[in-house]
Amino acid sequence: MNVKDINDPKFLKDLNYKQLNDLALDIRSYLIDAISKTGGHLASNLGVVELTIALHRVFDSPNDKIFFDVGHQSYVHKILTGRASQFDQLRQYHGLSGFQKRSESIHDVWEAGHSSTSLSAALGMCIARDLDGKDYCVVPVIGDGALSSGMSLEALNEIGEEKRRCVIIFNDNNMSISKNVGALSRSFTHLRSDKSYNQIKENMKRSLSRNEVGKVVLNGLTNFKDYFKESVIDYGIFKEFDIEYLGPVNGHNLKELIPALETAKKHDGPIVVHVITKKGKGYLPCEDDIDGIWHGIGPFNPATGKFLNSTPANCKSWSAIIADDVLKLADNNEDILCLTPAMIAGSKLEKFFTKYPFRSFDCGIAEEHAATFAASLALSGKRPFLAIYSSFLQRCYDQINHDICRMDLPVVIGIDRAGLVGNDGDTHHGVFDIGILRPIPNIILAQPKDAKEAGDMLFTAFANDHPFAIRYPRGSIAYKETTMEKIEIGTWTKHGSINDHKLIILTYGDDVDKITHKIEINKLPIMVINCRFFKPIDAKMLEKIAKENVKILIYETDMLAGGLSSAILEFACDHQLKLDIERIGIKDNYVTFGANSLLRKEQEIDINHLFARIDDLLKR
Amino acid sequence: MNVKDINDPKFLKDLNYKQLNDLALDIRSYLIDAISKTGGHLASNLGVVELTIALHRVFDSPNDKIFFDVGHQSYVHKILTGRASQFDQLRQYHGLSGFQKRSESIHDVWEAGHSSTSLSAALGMCIARDLDGKDYCVVPVIGDGALSSGMSLEALNEIGEEKRRCVIIFNDNNMSISKNVGALSRSFTHLRSDKSYNQIKENMKRSLSRNEVGKVVLNGLTNFKDYFKESVIDYGIFKEFDIEYLGPVNGHNLKELIPALETAKKHDGPIVVHVITKKGKGYLPCEDDIDGIWHGIGPFNPATGKFLNSTPANCKSWSAIIADDVLKLADNNEDILCLTPAMIAGSKLEKFFTKYPFRSFDCGIAEEHAATFAASLALSGKRPFLAIYSSFLQRCYDQINHDICRMDLPVVIGIDRAGLVGNDGDTHHGVFDIGILRPIPNIILAQPKDAKEAGDMLFTAFANDHPFAIRYPRGSIAYKETTMEKIEIGTWTKHGSINDHKLIILTYGDDVDKITHKIEINKLPIMVINCRFFKPIDAKMLEKIAKENVKILIYETDMLAGGLSSAILEFACDHQLKLDIERIGIKDNYVTFGANSLLRKEQEIDINHLFARIDDLLKR
Repeated sequence: MNVKDINDPKFLKDLNYKQLNDLALDIRSYLIDAISKTGGHLASNLGVVELTIALHRVFDSPNDKIFFDVGHQSYVHKILTGRASQFDQLRQYHGLSGFQKRSESIHDVWEAGHSSTSLSAALGMCIARDLDGKDYCVVPVIGDGALSSGMSLEALNEIGEEKRRCVIIFNDNNMSISKNVGALSRSFTHLRSDKSYNQIKENMKRSLSRNEVGKVVLNGLTNFKDYFKESVIDYGIFKEFDIEYLGPVNGHNLKELIPALETAKKHDGPIVVHVITKKGKGYLPCEDDIDGIWHGIGPFNPATGKFLNSTPANCKSWSAIIADDVLKLADNNEDILCLTPAMIAGSKLEKFFTKYPFRSFDCGIAEEHAATFAASLALSGKRPFLAIYSSFLQRCYDQINHDICRMDLPVVIGIDRAGLVGNDGDTHHGVFDIGILRPIPNIILAQPKDAKEAGDMLFTAFANDHPFAIRYPRGSIAYKETTMEKIEIGTWTKHGSINDHKLIILTYGDDVDKITHKIEINKLPIMVINCRFFKPIDAKMLEKIAKENVKILIYETDMLAGGLSSAILEFACDHQLKLDIERIGIKDNYVTFGANSLLRKEQEIDINHLFARIDDLLKR
Repeated sequence: MNVKDINDPKFLKDLNYKQLNDLALDIRSYLIDAISKTGGHLASNLGVVELTIALHRVFDSPNDKIFFDVGHQSYVHKILTGRASQFDQLRQYHGLSGFQKRSESIHDVWEAGHSSTSLSAALGMCIARDLDGKDYCVVPVIGDGALSSGMSLEALNEIGEEKRRCVIIFNDNNMSISKNVGALSRSFTHLRSDKSYNQIKENMKRSLSRNEVGKVVLNGLTNFKDYFKESVIDYGIFKEFDIEYLGPVNGHNLKELIPALETAKKHDGPIVVHVITKKGKGYLPCEDDIDGIWHGIGPFNPATGKFLNSTPANCKSWSAIIADDVLKLADNNEDILCLTPAMIAGSKLEKFFTKYPFRSFDCGIAEEHAATFAASLALSGKRPFLAIYSSFLQRCYDQINHDICRMDLPVVIGIDRAGLVGNDGDTHHGVFDIGILRPIPNIILAQPKDAKEAGDMLFTAFANDHPFAIRYPRGSIAYKETTMEKIEIGTWTKHGSINDHKLIILTYGDDVDKITHKIEINKLPIMVINCRFFKPIDAKMLEKIAKENVKILIYETDMLAGGLSSAILEFACDHQLKLDIERIGIKDNYVTFGANSLLRKEQEIDINHLFARIDDLLKR
C-alpha cells in the first residue's frame, strides 16, 4: 500500500498477517527511500517496523499511551499515525521532527531526545490514570542501551514498588548507538539466547499435564506470574525489581509479537515484554554496522549505501580534530586516558580506542558515572579526557561540580556539539553549558576559534592541574597539520582593525575568523576579540578596552543568560569599568530544529543580523 | 581504652576479639557523648563501629583505599585514624569535617557529601592501580539506599564489565536516611533474610562430601565463585552485574566480619560483601528510629535522648512552612501530589504522606527519576510538588531543563536548603541553583522573604501553568497562621525609606526584613527592594529606579556568577538602563563548613559587612 494514505492506526485491526507483513515491507522501503534524501535515524527505525505495527494493532492510540524512549525510533509510529507525507521535510526547519512532538500529533504523548526518560514518564502516566479512575494502557518502548542507564534503573525501582499496570516494551537489539557495553548487556544476552517465547509456550503445553501451576495458567492469567517464574526461572534484572517478564519474543515475527502483546495487555501490574530486534533490519549496510555509523546519518545513495555528504576538502570535523590531538598527546603521555558515555563514533574516538584499548573506557549511557569515574582517575594520578556532548553533559552537572571541580581535579572535558546542532533540535542544542559551568569554582572553560587553537588548548589543558573544559561545535573546519603549543590561560586575542577602530566585537568560536574576514574585506574600522576563555576571562584586555571608550558588541551563539556577556558585565560591575555594551545571542526561548543557518536567522544571531547591527552602530 | 590515644589504625592488628569488642564499646560511648554536644550524624556511625574496626584490621590504610559513600558515616574511621581528640570541633568552623576530607588525613582518599559516588570512584582507583602495576585493595563502603541510586547502578554495570579487584562493602541497614523504598529494597530483604554467612559456611562443610565444587573450594579459592553461586543460588542484583557476592554477614559480629573480609581480600575481581548492620546500634533512641529523625542531628541529652535545640517560640522551620502550606492547598485540590527523593523527614513532608498516602511518592535517592516522574504527572493533568534540596537538585538539572521546562509543564519545585547550610559545608550549600536555573526558558524562580510570602508564592505557583521553583533556606522564621493570596509573578516589593533615599539595596529572602528593620531603627535613607523573583525580574521597577540615578547595592547570599545581580546587569545592558551597581555575594570559591554566621563573615556577606559598605556609600 501507499503509506502516505494512512491517516490513523485503526486500520491495522482489520488486516491479516499477510497484509501486515506486506505493510512492513512497504514501510521499510519508504523509510530507506525517504531517509536517503533527508538523512535521519535509519537503523533504529528499520529495527522496530514490525514492533510498531504490532503495538498499534494491539493497543488503541492515543487512548493507550504508546511512546518511545529518546524518540528517534518513532518514524514508523509517525507513518502509522498519518505523517508519512511529511517525510520529505523530516528534521527540516518547520518540517517533521525527528523525535516525538506533542504539537505534531495526538498520538505523540511524550517528548524526549535524551535517553532513559520513558520509564519515569510511564510511571507518571500510570499514577495519574489510577488516581483519575481511568483504564488506558501505558506502553513505553525502551532499548537495552537506554535501559542500562541509571535513570531507567531508578524508575524500574519505583515501578516495581508501585505495581501499576504498565506494559514495558524492552526493545533489545544489543546496541545503543554503537555496540552495547556493561555487565547488564551480558545479562541481557543470557536472557536473549536462552529461550524464545514460542519455546516457552511449547513448554507450557507440555508441562500442563504434570504441572499444577501450568494448568491454572492456561485456564486464566491469574497465576501468570508464577507460571513464567517457573518456566523461565531467571528473568534477569527485572526479577530484582519485582517486575513481570514475558519473552524473549522475535521482534520481526508478527505472529509472535501480537499474541505476546495481547497477553501483556491483560496483565494487571507492570510487565516487561522482551522483544529481540535487529537494528537496521532489511537494509544490509545498516544490519552489518556495529560501530553506529548508521545511527544518525545524512543523505545517502540507497542502492550503494554510500553517504552523499562528506567533509569538504582540507576540512576536518571538530570532533576528529580534538580526538586526534588527544591521541597525539596520549602518544607521549601514558597517563592520558579516554572516556566516553556511549559516543565513540560520534566523538570520533575510534582511533584512540583501537590504539589504546586499555586506556579507553566506554561507560555506556551513564554520564553521571562517567564524570565521577574521571574524577577518581584524576585523583589517582591519571589524566582523563572525558568527551561528552554539551546537551548530555547536563546529565552530569552535579558530578562535574561536586566531584571534579570541588576537588579541583585535572579532568579534561571535551564538550562536543556545543552551540546549535541543527536538525536534532531543542533537546540536542548545546547552548546551556557556558551558563551552568561558569559559576563553578576551579573550572577553566574555553572554546577554540580554529583547528590550531583547538590543539593548543588541549596541550594547555593537559599541562595544567585544574578541571579544563573545551567546547567545540558540530561540523567541520579548515584543517592542516601543525604542532601544539601552550597558550596562556585566560588570554584573549585581537583581530581585524586592532589599532584604529570605532567598534569592538567580542565573540568566540569559528565565528571569530568569519567576522574578521568580512571586516578585512570591507575595510571596516572594527576590532574583533577572540574571547577564547569564558573562564577565566581576560581581565587585562577588558581593562584596556574600557579605557578606549569605544562601543562594544558582544556576539554570542548560545543562551545569553549566564553566558559570555554575563561574565563581562559582572566583571565590569565588580571593577567599576565603564563599558558601552550591546549584545546579541539566544534569548529566553528553546530553539527548534532545522539547518543551523535557518535557526540562526530565526534567533537573529546570524552573521547578516550581526552586520546589520554593525552598520547601525557605525553610522551613529 | 581512651580513643583519643589512637594515632594510627595499625594497632588493631595486635588486638584479640575481646579487645576489639571492648574497643567497639569505647568508640560507641565516645560517639554518643561527643555528638550529644556538637550534633552530627549519629545513627549511621553507630551502625558501622564493628565494620570499620574490621576494615582497618583486615586492610592496610592508607595503602589500601577504604572510603565511605557520602562520608557522614566516617566518624569511626576518623577515630581509628587518630582524630578522636578533634571531635569537640566536629562540623564546627575550621574544625573536623563531618565528611571525609583529603586535607584532614592521608587515610581520607575520597571526598563526597552527595550519595552514590563511591562505586565510580572505586573503579577509577582500580583502573589507575592496574595501569600503574600496583597492588593495593580498593574498598568502598556503600549503604543500601545509596546503592539503589541510578549512579551506583551505572557504576556496577561497568565494574561488572571491567572485573577489577575491588571489595565493595554493602552496608545494608535497610534504611537510607529514613526507611528505604523501592523494589530493590525488597530484593535486598530477600537476600538478607535468607541465610547468614555462618550458615553458608556450615552448608559448605556439609556439602563437601556430596559436592565436587565444594571440595575444590575448600582446597583453595579458585572456584570460590562457583561455590557461592551453588550455595546462595540467588545473589540478587549483583548477579545481574556479574559481580561476586559474599554474605550476608552480621555487621556487629567481628568473628563473622573479619574472616569474611579476609576472604574477600583474596578474591581476584570485584566482590560484594553484604554486611547487615543496624543504624543507631547500641543507643536505643536511635535504634528505634525509622523516620530518620536521628540521621543528622543537633545536640541532645544522651541520658534522655531529648534534643536540646528546638525551634524558637513563634517560629517554624522553612521546610515545615512550605510543606504545611502545600498540604493546605492539597486539601482543596486533589490533583496536588507530593514527591520527594528520600527526604520525607528533612523536607517535613510527614503530614502530607500520612494524610494522603496515595498522593505521596518517596522516590528514594533518585533525583533524576523524580524530576521526570513529576514532569509526566504534570503532563497527565496532575499538579506535582517536588521537594528537593538545592544541592541535590544539581543531580536533576537535565531533567528539569529537558523534561519539565522544555515541555513547559506545571511542576512546583520546592528548593529546600537554598543558600548556605552551615555545618554540612561545601557539598551541601545550596548556592548554585539560581545560576543554573535562570537560563532555562519557561521557569519561574522565586524566594519568599517570610512565611506569609512563602504561602502566597505557593498559592501563586499552583494557580499558574508553568514550571515554578520556590527556594527557601535551612532554619526557621517567625510564623503565624494567615491566608494565602495570589501575587503577581515577577513583581518585587519596596521597603524602608521608599520615598526619600540615597541608596537602594536589592536583596532577597529573610535578609530583606532584617536589613529593613536595621535601616528603620537607624533611620537610614535607604530603600530595600525585595527581589522575590529571580525570573522573571521586575522590569518596571528596574526601569523606575534607573530614573532615580541613585547608587544601587545588590546584596546576594549565593554565588555571584549567574545570580540576581547577573540577571539585573543583563537586563540593564539589554534595555540600556544606566544603573550604578555594586554587589556583594559569594565569589568564585567553594565555602567550607561551620556556623552560617561564621561562613557569612568569612565570605564577607554578613550583615555587618553589608552595613560597613553602606556606611561607606552613604558618606560619599
